[in-house]
This record gives sequence, structure tokens and C-alpha cells, in this order.
Amino acid sequence: MTMYNAPVEDMMFLFENLKDNKNYNEIEKFKEINSDLVKDILDQAAKINQEIVHPLAKIGDENPCVYENGIVRSPPGYKEAYTRFINDGWTSLSCDPKYGGQGMPKTVSTFFEEMLSSASLSFKLYSELSIGAYNCILHHADQKIKDIFLPKIVEGKWSGTMCLTESQCGTDLGLIKTKAVKQNDGSYAVTGQKIFITSGDHDLTENIIHLVLAKIPGGPTGTKGISLFLVPKFNVNENGSIGTRNGVNTLSIESKMGIKGSPTCVLNFDNAKGFLIGQENKGLSSMFTMMNLERIIVGIQGLGIAETAYQNSLSYAQERKQGKSNNNKDNKTDEIIKHADIRRSLLNMKSIIQGQRSLAFWLSQQIDVSLNHTNEKIRKNAEDLVSLMTPVVKSFFTDMGTEITNEAIQVFGGYGYTKDQGIEQLYRDNRITPIYEGTNSVQAIDLVFRKVLNNKILLNFISIVKEEIKINQETSELKEFSKILSNNLRLLEDFSTLLEKMNKTNKDDVSAACNDFLKVLGYISLAFSWFKISKISFKKINDNKSFYEEKINTAKYFYDKILPRAEMHYNSAKSGSNIIMNAKFN
Amino acid sequence: MTMYNAPVEDMMFLFENLKDNKNYNEIEKFKEINSDLVKDILDQAAKINQEIVHPLAKIGDENPCVYENGIVRSPPGYKEAYTRFINDGWTSLSCDPKYGGQGMPKTVSTFFEEMLSSASLSFKLYSELSIGAYNCILHHADQKIKDIFLPKIVEGKWSGTMCLTESQCGTDLGLIKTKAVKQNDGSYAVTGQKIFITSGDHDLTENIIHLVLAKIPGGPTGTKGISLFLVPKFNVNENGSIGTRNGVNTLSIESKMGIKGSPTCVLNFDNAKGFLIGQENKGLSSMFTMMNLERIIVGIQGLGIAETAYQNSLSYAQERKQGKSNNNKDNKTDEIIKHADIRRSLLNMKSIIQGQRSLAFWLSQQIDVSLNHTNEKIRKNAEDLVSLMTPVVKSFFTDMGTEITNEAIQVFGGYGYTKDQGIEQLYRDNRITPIYEGTNSVQAIDLVFRKVLNNKILLNFISIVKEEIKINQETSELKEFSKILSNNLRLLEDFSTLLEKMNKTNKDDVSAACNDFLKVLGYISLAFSWFKISKISFKKINDNKSFYEEKINTAKYFYDKILPRAEMHYNSAKSGSNIIMNAKFN
Repeated sequence: MTMYNAPVEDMMFLFENLKDNKNYNEIEKFKEINSDLVKDILDQAAKINQEIVHPLAKIGDENPCVYENGIVRSPPGYKEAYTRFINDGWTSLSCDPKYGGQGMPKTVSTFFEEMLSSASLSFKLYSELSIGAYNCILHHADQKIKDIFLPKIVEGKWSGTMCLTESQCGTDLGLIKTKAVKQNDGSYAVTGQKIFITSGDHDLTENIIHLVLAKIPGGPTGTKGISLFLVPKFNVNENGSIGTRNGVNTLSIESKMGIKGSPTCVLNFDNAKGFLIGQENKGLSSMFTMMNLERIIVGIQGLGIAETAYQNSLSYAQERKQGKSNNNKDNKTDEIIKHADIRRSLLNMKSIIQGQRSLAFWLSQQIDVSLNHTNEKIRKNAEDLVSLMTPVVKSFFTDMGTEITNEAIQVFGGYGYTKDQGIEQLYRDNRITPIYEGTNSVQAIDLVFRKVLNNKILLNFISIVKEEIKINQETSELKEFSKILSNNLRLLEDFSTLLEKMNKTNKDDVSAACNDFLKVLGYISLAFSWFKISKISFKKINDNKSFYEEKINTAKYFYDKILPRAEMHYNSAKSGSNIIMNAKFN
Repeated sequence: MTMYNAPVEDMMFLFENLKDNKNYNEIEKFKEINSDLVKDILDQAAKINQEIVHPLAKIGDENPCVYENGIVRSPPGYKEAYTRFINDGWTSLSCDPKYGGQGMPKTVSTFFEEMLSSASLSFKLYSELSIGAYNCILHHADQKIKDIFLPKIVEGKWSGTMCLTESQCGTDLGLIKTKAVKQNDGSYAVTGQKIFITSGDHDLTENIIHLVLAKIPGGPTGTKGISLFLVPKFNVNENGSIGTRNGVNTLSIESKMGIKGSPTCVLNFDNAKGFLIGQENKGLSSMFTMMNLERIIVGIQGLGIAETAYQNSLSYAQERKQGKSNNNKDNKTDEIIKHADIRRSLLNMKSIIQGQRSLAFWLSQQIDVSLNHTNEKIRKNAEDLVSLMTPVVKSFFTDMGTEITNEAIQVFGGYGYTKDQGIEQLYRDNRITPIYEGTNSVQAIDLVFRKVLNNKILLNFISIVKEEIKINQETSELKEFSKILSNNLRLLEDFSTLLEKMNKTNKDDVSAACNDFLKVLGYISLAFSWFKISKISFKKINDNKSFYEEKINTAKYFYDKILPRAEMHYNSAKSGSNIIMNAKFN
């Protein structure tokens, strides 16, 4: 089995040193969320994730969910752990106190999301969509629905799902066939089949609240005719108590490569009673409130799994003896961590993971500003940055999760391929993250077509980075970072200029370049994060020499060894799409 | 379940057009191996792999090998298929007719290795090490052993294993603890435990011939004191009939991420009767006869699995409808193959796979020359090229297998993560290939320290490529390829000069750069292959326009989109190892 130690020190480093967003610091209700409080929360979070949640990872893999006689059973121990989990209030961490939540900012809850992903993605998925459902209901449902459903969801007694996909449509939601027919009492009768529904059915909660995309007959075709409905597994009485079973049934659960402790369901809706959320035919935009935050959390899953992979490889490399390093003096066999190529692998992992954690922290501040600042313009500005970085975090972090779990297996050699050590499970569990909540290919298209072309958001981001590297270059090493980062920013600008030009002449050129562009923006965003980490590290170096020296060294590694990938992606994208579109695949 | 169609057309294209090695064409006994014969063999091979072997892939995954009461049982249907397989003579394809083989050159048998890897890696592994054992015995055992063991192995009635790894040593064989004590009858009593033994025990053959590395007490320490022994599962009588059970027992089989239809065994040798192969304490070099050819075949496994992944993604992309492409005119949903980003993924796969197949074909000719040419100098020269390319093919092809099976999952979206389509199995099955027969990290070290530094082999290879691009540049497009390839050759030369320099000042700099160097050589070798394919395609374009145009287009894709990775690896390696060695990992 894998081990896991929550990286509380690194998280506190970020919280104490990089909570530098002026707008965030103006948010009144977060002013009391100080270091002591956060440290206390993270310590508690570490405890439950390490002791209670992490052992569930292997249990879920070895004892997948079972579907029998229409019932889905979760793996052994999941129910007890979930009860403890909700009793300790972890589902309510970032929710509104008005509905029983603890009102923590994203800066804190994102750390928790990472820990939970590191501990067991399968277990996490039981509550993850509940928070998505919470956000969606909070922002789009009417007050009566909020009052009935939100407290139970926040408490964790009821869980939530997102029902989008049907067998004929994943990415292309315009093809949805599920129908919703208005009834005399104002509710809707929902009929259709949904597939790939994470936590669509299970035995951990008293009720399951499905948020379902469906079409009202007679509405517009395509995505413009999609509405959103709340469809509970059990009907809910006026007083909030659980009533009769609704017309939602589980037909089967998927047999999957990983996340076997999480049930992925085929759900059948047969005249199920549903309630419209938001306006008719505006369902997709309401759902996107849920989707966008969810996409960022999927990115965090990739980060969390990568952290566990890194910790275990590091620990194995420190113990496993094999061969002699170049500087071996005593002729005894060395631990493999003494070999340069193994160190290189570990630094790949470390520099990407810690850069991502810092970027996620920066983004969390932007989310908090976008949701809570009193000034509308400031909120909008932050929202733009969040919308720019959402596809990047979703795709880049999950792709890096694939790379890092792959490298981790390699560090373990043959022991990485067998089941005992649990490393191969991380590789399998992570592999869903580049797929669900919109494939990474779709994210890249969203990034380029919606957020970069004909839009100034990227320029905003670039000017923030420029501002950062302009000032305070006290040390020559920071100057070196600043020079490299400037060159890469120029590359990013050139790339976006190229995209604008391509967009006027041949849209396929743009489509063919989206994935490369997302990668470039990802690597440069991490370079930006490492720049900020280095700046503070140079400043504080005498406070904790070993900690800050390691940060600076890891930053150098990132700039030297990882960042050159950005240029390669640009070079690869430059040649356009003619050859791609000419291929016959015969 | 996946589908598989053996790429006989592409193989025949190579055999007919790129069998251009003058030395190979001088080998007398291969002169009669003409296109008609090869086409006939490949058609038969396609038939058995598609119809009999390929269905075993899923069966083995769903019904892994079972270990019960000391016995290992193969998955259902494996025994029947294996019987058909050996009756049709497929194990004997490349073996010496003297021992019952068919004497085919590697140019032909490598195609077969690829097909078998595409069809079912688990099934392939039952006979794969038999060929390794055959080669090892053929080159190093005395005549009596050859006469007793080789005919049965060639026939496929007995199979072989390689017993190297012990729990404390995989890469570092100097740590071996298994002992071999000489007996009065000239045999040895072998005692020790070996792990990760592929096909170490099973029920497909009458006997299993283990080739075991062990130490004779009193011999030199480390790798210089390793000897090689032949240890049969059942003792063999003088007349070749099967005798009593030898002291070899299976303790357990591994539970693994993939290749579940292949038993990976822990074997216990308890005073097992063994016969010395080659000289005492020279076992490692004898074993390397087996290892080196085996490493190339592992590379071919990566290629074969990638081919199946590509074929299935292509077929899915041609059928699955989702979204509208940029040039959609009729407002109907398009097949996803019309989307530029999906095409890009498919071309990544195709350009790498077909380039690799061509490189493997080139290398097969070199192997045939190294084993069969009458001129010793020519043999040696070919052997050098084989030794240079062995770690490249092993590592680069298997890493690309990881990349391609990963991309294939992504093309399938959610259906790639569930078990029904069989795509995720390819990702899991392939993942062993970068590990076994020496991890890819070890291959890179072998390449750089043994074959590039202080050695002229790389210069040989570079001059072959230079020769190729100097002549016959009839078309301007070929000139463009030639220009890009020249630039990359310069990069390769600069990189090897840098390695020489690093080697004098800091060996860790070299160690840290090995993996990048191997990748650079891999990409440039594929560019060399695509150059040759293009040259012939321009020449013959009017013979089969659609075939050759597609080849040229795919070559362009490789040069535009994939080859830029070489420069990135060089840039990443340049910065040396100081930062890597300074890391504290605290």
C-alpha cells in the first residue's frame, strides 16, 4: 500500500507568503482566516486524510462497488469513513454558513481538495459532486428549493450528481434526448437515460440529488433548448423529510480501469419528478456554474494523485539499493536516489507538483475575489482570469498527473507494475482525470476559441506576469529567471498573435494548435509561480535556509529542464493544419 | 473487444522497397526469401494472429493465470491456441533448420513479432523467452546440450525462461545470491530464489528450460562471478525423454496491472540440477546474447501494441459522431475524425508507428548481416550498429507505446476508460515494456556510456544517414526534409560532443543527460526512416498514388510536428547536473 503525508508545510508556505492578492485581502469575511486557523484546519485535514481516507484507496481498488438487484453497494469501510467525514464537517468546508457551511475561502478548501485527492480519489468522488450541486442550486434555484435541499447537502446527508452524458453525446450536449414534460403542479416528468454518472447511486447517503440536463418538448434545437432539473432519488416532502422513491433507477455500473471504489452509473429516468432550476432552455449556462468549478477541482485531483506518486517514489528511491553512483567511494551499493537519472525523475515530479500547487493557490485567490469582492469590476476581472485558467488547470494538471504517475512506476521498476506497492493504482486512478468533465482536447478548444481569440483576458494575464518580473530583482539569479520568463512571455504573445492570424485564414490551423497552446500557457504559468516562490525564497533565505534553498534549486530545475518544452510546443504548432487535414488514414 | 488487422501492406512495402542493405542482399541463404514467399508467410501470420491469438488478449485479462497447489494454470483457450501455434510452426520461424527451424531472416520474423505483440502480448510471452533461450543455448552451450534441448524448444514442446532478477537485485546483477555448487557428475546444484520470471511456470509445454544466473562459491565478487546454468523443470534423460521433477518450484505468481494472461513467477531453486552454459564466471556475457535480442523484441512489443491502439482509435474516430468540424456545411454532427485535434492525435500515432516499423526493418537487416555475413569486418560493423540501436529500440519504442496507448484512450473519451472496448487494456499491457529486460533508464545509460562515449559507432550511424540524404534529392520537398534532417544531425553531433566534454569533467552531467540523448537519437532515427520512405514514395508515386501520397504526407507530419521534440531534449540536457545533484528532497 502507498503512504501519504499531507504537505502541510508547503501549503502553509503558500498561505503565509503568497496570499498577496490585494483584492483578496480586501474581502471582509476572510480577514479573520489567519495562519493559525488555517494551520489548525490543515492539520486536522491531514489527520483524517492520512488515517481514515487513505486506507480506503486500496480497499476500493480491491473491492470495487457492486451492483446487485438494482442496488449499488460501496466498498467495505466506505460508509463508516463517510459518516465520520461528514460528522467532522468536511463536506461543508467552503459552503455558506447560512446553510450550515463553514464559509472557508477557496484558498483553504483547495488545499483540502488536494489532500482528499491524494488520499483516495474514489472516496472523494462521493462528496465532490455534492459541492458542485450545492453551487449550482445556490446560484440558480429558487429560495424554496435552496431551503429544502442545501442544508442536507451541506451536511453531507444527501449527495449530488451531474447528469449530462448520454450514450450518443458526451462533448456534444446538443444531442441530448432526455425529455422533461411540464406537469400540472409545476414540476416536470423527466424521462431518458444518462451514462457515466459518477456517484449516480450508492449507499452512503440518505438521498441523492441529481442535476439533470433535459429538453422540454417544443423548445429550440441543439444546446439552446437544454434545461436543467433537480431530480431527487427519493421525493422530498414539504417538511424536508424523505418521501416515496422517485422514478430514477440504476441499470448498471461500469467496469473501469481505475477509481473502482467509485460507482459510475447508467441511470434510467422514467417519468421522474423533477424541478426546473433557473429558466427553461437556459440549463446549460446554469450547469456551467457547476462545471467550471468542477473542472478546476479535477485539475486538483491530478495534482493530488501526483503528490502521492511523488512521495512514494521518493521514499522508495531513498531505500532501494541498486548499482553504484558516479561518485561512489566505498564500493558499496548505493540507494537509487544517488543516481542522477532517478533524481531527474524525482525533480520532474517535484518541480511540476509544487509549481502547480502554487498556481492553484493563486487561482483560488482569484476565485474568492470573483465570488466575494464588493467591487463588480474587480469581481469581473478576477472571473476573467479564472475562466482563462480553468481549462489550463483542468488539462495541464491532469496530463501532468499522467506523466508523473508514469514516472513513479518507472522509479519502482518491476515493483511498480505489480499490485503490492499500490503505485500502479495511482496511474490507473489518475487516467480518468484527462477525460471527465470535458476531455482535455475540449478544454484546449475552449481555452483558445472562447478565451484567447478576440479577447483580452490573456493580455491581462501576461501583464500580471510582466508586472511581477519587472520589480524587485535584487539578486542576479532572479534576474536570470526574469530573463527566461520574459523570453517565454514573448513566445506566448507570438503564439497568440499567430492564432489570431490563423483564425482569419483557416480555423483548422487554430484547432490543430489548441493543445500546444494550452501546454505553452501551462508551462509558462508554472514558471510564473516558480518566479514568485523564488522571489520570496531569496528574501527569506536566512529564516529557514534548507527550505528556501531547496525551493530556489527546484525553481532552477524547472526553468532549466521543464520550461524548454514550451518552445517545442510552439514550434510544433507553427506549421498549421494542411498536412493534418490532408491525411487520408488509408 | 479491440479489433486487429495485421498491416501486411505496410510490411510488404518495406520488404519490397527498403531491403536496400547491400550486405544483407549478399547473404546467400536469404536470396531465395523473395516477396512472394514473404507475402505468403505474412498472410498466414495475419490469419493466426487475427483469428486465433487476438481473442486471447481479452480472455487473459479477464481470466488471469491461476496459482493453486503449486501449479500454474494458463487462461482458458491458451493451451488449444498454443498447440495450434506450434503445430503451424510459428515458434520455429527464425530458428536454424539444423534443429528443426525454418531459417527465416529477422527481416521476416520481426514482422511476425510485431503481429504477435499486437494480437496478445500475454500469449506472446509464453514463446518469446523460448527463442531467447534458443539463441543463448545455440551460441554458448556444448553440442550435447544443443542436441538434447534445441529441437524440443524449436518445436515449441518445451519453453524457456530467463532467471536473472532476485528480490534484492534487478538492474544490479552483481548482488545475485543464488548459488551453484559443482557436483561429482559435472552438473551443478542450484539453490536460490528468482522473482519476476516471465512464463516461469505454466501448463502449455511439457517442460520448461530455465536459464539461471547464479554464483559458484569461491568465485569473484560482483558481476565477474556470475555463471549461467540451464535448469530444466523436469530432468531430461539421456535419450531426450522427460524424467523426474527437478528441484524447481513455483512459490507464487504476481498480481499485476496488465499482461494478466502471462504468469510472472517467484521460483524457488532447491538443489536443482543445472548444467553450466559457457564458462564459469562468464555467465553474464552469455546471458547478454539472449538479453540483447530480447531487448529489441521488447521494443517491437511496444510497436505492436501501439499499432492495435492506433487501429482501434482510427476506427472509433471514423464512426463516433460528436460536434461540428470547422468546415461543417450541412449542420449535421460530424464524425470526430473530421476534427483537427483528433486527426493530430491519430497522426502522432501513425507517424511514430510507421517510422518505427521502418527503423525496425532496417535494424533487422543489420541483425541478419551481423549473424550471417561471411565477411567478419562487415559482420562486426553491423553488430556495432545493432548494439547502438538496441537500447534505442527498447526504450524509445516502449515509451512511445505508452504515449500512443495513452492518446488512444483519449480518442475514445469515457469509453476509453471502461473495460468494454479493450483500449485501456492496451495501456496497461504496454506499461510493462519500459520496465522489463532492463528499465529504460538503464538502457539510456547503456547507450551513452557503453556505445556513444569513446566509441565510433554513433559516427558510423551518422555517416550512414548523411550518405542517405546527400544523394538523389530530385524533388524540392525531399530537399526540405534533407535540410531539416541535416540540422538535426548537427544537433546530434553537438550533443555527443557535449557528452564527451561532460564525461571528462562531471560524470553526473552525462548520467543526467542519458535519457534526453536516447530520445534525441530515437527521433532522429525515425526522421531517417521517414526520409527513406519519402524518397521511395516520390519515386514511385504514380504506381499507387493514394498509398505514396499518404506516406509523404505522414513524413511531413513527422518532420513538422514530432521532430521538434529532439531540440527540446537537447536544450533540457544542456544545463548539466549541478541542480539535480544539489537537490535535498526535503
